[in-house]
Amino acid sequence: MTDADLPEVPSTWSVTAGIVVIGDEILSGRTKDTNVGHIAEYLTGIGIETREVRIVPDVTSMIVEAVDTLRARYTYVFTTGGIGPTHDDITADAIATAFGVGIEIDQRAVELIRQRKPDLELTAARLRMARIPHGAELIENPVSGAPGFQIGNVIVMAGVPRIMQGMLAGVGPRLRTGPRILSETVVAHLPEGRIAEPLSEIARAFADVSIGSYPHFDGENYMTQVVVRSRDADRVAAAKAAVEEAVAKLEQTS
Amino acid sequence: MTDADLPEVPSTWSVTAGIVVIGDEILSGRTKDTNVGHIAEYLTGIGIETREVRIVPDVTSMIVEAVDTLRARYTYVFTTGGIGPTHDDITADAIATAFGVGIEIDQRAVELIRQRKPDLELTAARLRMARIPHGAELIENPVSGAPGFQIGNVIVMAGVPRIMQGMLAGVGPRLRTGPRILSETVVAHLPEGRIAEPLSEIARAFADVSIGSYPHFDGENYMTQVVVRSRDADRVAAAKAAVEEAVAKLEQTS
Repeated sequence: MTDADLPEVPSTWSVTAGIVVIGDEILSGRTKDTNVGHIAEYLTGIGIETREVRIVPDVTSMIVEAVDTLRARYTYVFTTGGIGPTHDDITADAIATAFGVGIEIDQRAVELIRQRKPDLELTAARLRMARIPHGAELIENPVSGAPGFQIGNVIVMAGVPRIMQGMLAGVGPRLRTGPRILSETVVAHLPEGRIAEPLSEIARAFADVSIGSYPHFDGENYMTQVVVRSRDADRVAAAKAAVEEAVAKLEQTS
Repeated sequence: MTDADLPEVPSTWSVTAGIVVIGDEILSGRTKDTNVGHIAEYLTGIGIETREVRIVPDVTSMIVEAVDTLRARYTYVFTTGGIGPTHDDITADAIATAFGVGIEIDQRAVELIRQRKPDLELTAARLRMARIPHGAELIENPVSGAPGFQIGNVIVMAGVPRIMQGMLAGVGPRLRTGPRILSETVVAHLPEGRIAEPLSEIARAFADVSIGSYPHFDGENYMTQVVVRSRDADRVAAAKAAVEEAVAKLEQTS
């Protein structure tokens, strides 16, 4: 499959994003990722649509492949993980490889580390965290000093959730954002199978509104959340009313 | 980038896996995925190494692209999501497209749904859950009846965690598995930057052992977990001892 054969990525949003999570520990199941959920929710809130996520190991070729594919497809790419001081932290070097630029210790990054921890001896390992690809802008790390960075449309952040969240909050205001998507949720105390047919009809009647249905099962009872989303408040309200009417009718007869 | 240019996927394990999570609700951040962590941990436990995860929206072309890429690369591909009864459940059709086979209502699947819920009216929506690509084997759903399926090396499961877990537990025993990887963890009450240099030396001395370091920060204190992994118990023990010695020395002087 060549790039020319790659599927178009349909999106009704004007600003899109991909996320690349980097780390063997996620793929082994040892660490449970929470960064994807946080980033996706944050981006939705500011009008950026996440269209694809890839989780890859600490392997340069796989980081480069994921970043290169997604940066060509989406407005922004966010990466998490692999920018610490140890031998398995290879993200900054992989990003430099992807962009075909050099990488070296960046004095601005050294200063940020020094400011936060003036008494810290800057060992070779700590200086490793100041290695930044040429041409990148730094992203401040409000927790532990060592910065992330942005190069082109790729935003490189730490993997530790607290630090990643601080970096994202810092970089968010400088991103290009789209119109907010409005969303309403209708809760149906019904299994998804009971509501599927009326929902399908409503989806046809509201082709401009995204209608998703999300079943839950608590071990005893089924329920289904129906989410209607659009930029147009009137259409969201009309679709929501149609769903509510269908659900009420079904709940009465169940 | 053509397939020929794709990076080789290094693995010292003999049996590998990719995971494809399907669903707009994960990408919007509305639902936080827990299936990746569960599947990865389960597979690690039976000697299968997860090498890559992709999260894609409810879009046929993107499901097909992810499944086709990963099924060529890895021993198995596990998918979650998109096999329910509603209009946005398109996974079974997308898998049939990827394999170039037909899809229709499968009488074995109808029987499984009927057995679990004999009184249930089999509406068109419910029968949608019995649509199975030609040539697939069914995977039992111990929770709600509607089955998953396996076609070639692709295992298609539900997105609801409780149902997915039941399907995975059912399909696990029929998978080809590799030798278990042995793993030991050393906890260092030190920031990662303090331990990075000795760890790097140990990693060089134990090139056949995978040594990962995972920093945590609770808002006040730093700690680092060092995980050593290998198939060889003696090498794991030796690497663990080397890490413990280095950590003890550093903790005394900190």
